[in-house]
Amino acid sequence: MNQIEIRTGTRREMVDITAEVAGVAEGGGDGLCHVFVPHTTAAVVINEHADPDVARDLTAAYEAMVPGIDFAHAEGNSDAHLMATLLGSSVTVPLVGGRLRLGTWQGIFFVELDGPRTRKVWVNVV
Amino acid sequence: MNQIEIRTGTRREMVDITAEVAGVAEGGGDGLCHVFVPHTTAAVVINEHADPDVARDLTAAYEAMVPGIDFAHAEGNSDAHLMATLLGSSVTVPLVGGRLRLGTWQGIFFVELDGPRTRKVWVNVV
Amino acid sequence: MNQIEIRTGTRREMVDITAEVAGVAEGGGDGLCHVFVPHTTAAVVINEHADPDVARDLTAAYEAMVPGIDFAHAEGNSDAHLMATLLGSSVTVPLVGGRLRLGTWQGIFFVELDGPRTRKVWVNVV
Repeated sequence: MNQIEIRTGTRREMVDITAEVAGVAEGGGDGLCHVFVPHTTAAVVINEHADPDVARDLTAAYEAMVPGIDFAHAEGNSDAHLMATLLGSSVTVPLVGGRLRLGTWQGIFFVELDGPRTRKVWVNVV
Repeated sequence: MNQIEIRTGTRREMVDITAEVAGVAEGGGDGLCHVFVPHTTAAVVINEHADPDVARDLTAAYEAMVPGIDFAHAEGNSDAHLMATLLGSSVTVPLVGGRLRLGTWQGIFFVELDGPRTRKVWVNVV
Repeated sequence: MNQIEIRTGTRREMVDITAEVAGVAEGGGDGLCHVFVPHTTAAVVINEHADPDVARDLTAAYEAMVPGIDFAHAEGNSDAHLMATLLGSSVTVPLVGGRLRLGTWQGIFFVELDGPRTRKVWVNVV
């Protein structure tokens, strides 16, 4: 298992980690690359990384989708836990000849939902 | 493949199944543990299991996010199908030396969206 | 890796690809079948494929959940990118003796969020 470290700078943020994941997967042969976020207020998704406006629209939309109900959790970050469960804690990408097989416009994003914090991502090749 | 059985008691409920999944994965070596829900009105997520308020906030938020549109499906549980597709039917967790490698605050939750029912979860180690 | 091609006919649409995925997985032994969508405005989910009303309710609900905020992305399809990240770019299904092990009511759906387009799905057995 390989670990990537990320330092986020704001509360909500999408960090493109495609190159870091590709670096770990390199030489892994054929199979799947599993990218796992060991946090409960962050997530990982695959989406367009060509136009940075897409990532900005996504974080704004995640915030706008949180319902205006009273949350009980004392830390006050239930909105971040909510979006983390909807986006998911892992993605899995086909690996061919040690290279990530992503679509033309796809990149892998770490999604910070309750930053700024120091975060980890675990990468496994199977 | 191993099967875990769950009996839910209410319509919406999060059931912590971390210990049951860990028991199945034990001795599985290194790789990934795949947890699959073979139902269409239930899901599985990874999130905080230290403070039970988080799970309560999550089920309340899932309910509040269902849009107020007219659904066609005659069983009247399209809200449950909707949230099941957004949360997802499986999670995959790194396995190291036969132990689940989860983050400090992470647990695995079966998410009942249309209970009470008797449910199954299938666990595979690869 | 095997590729399935799909031609969608409308902007939002759920295409049942269970039979195509099962055909690819056939003879794959025991393990997992990974279904990956290499697009950023489409997704893949597992849900009920017995009553077609469920799929219709789902696409209507995905549309209704998009928040009414101003999006920056110039192509005007940020709603599709948003729902793609919430639904996810892959599903993983247990495989036993070369057969997909799905629940009684479950099918695998390609989710078109910005069609009509020609699309691809990549299927891997591990």
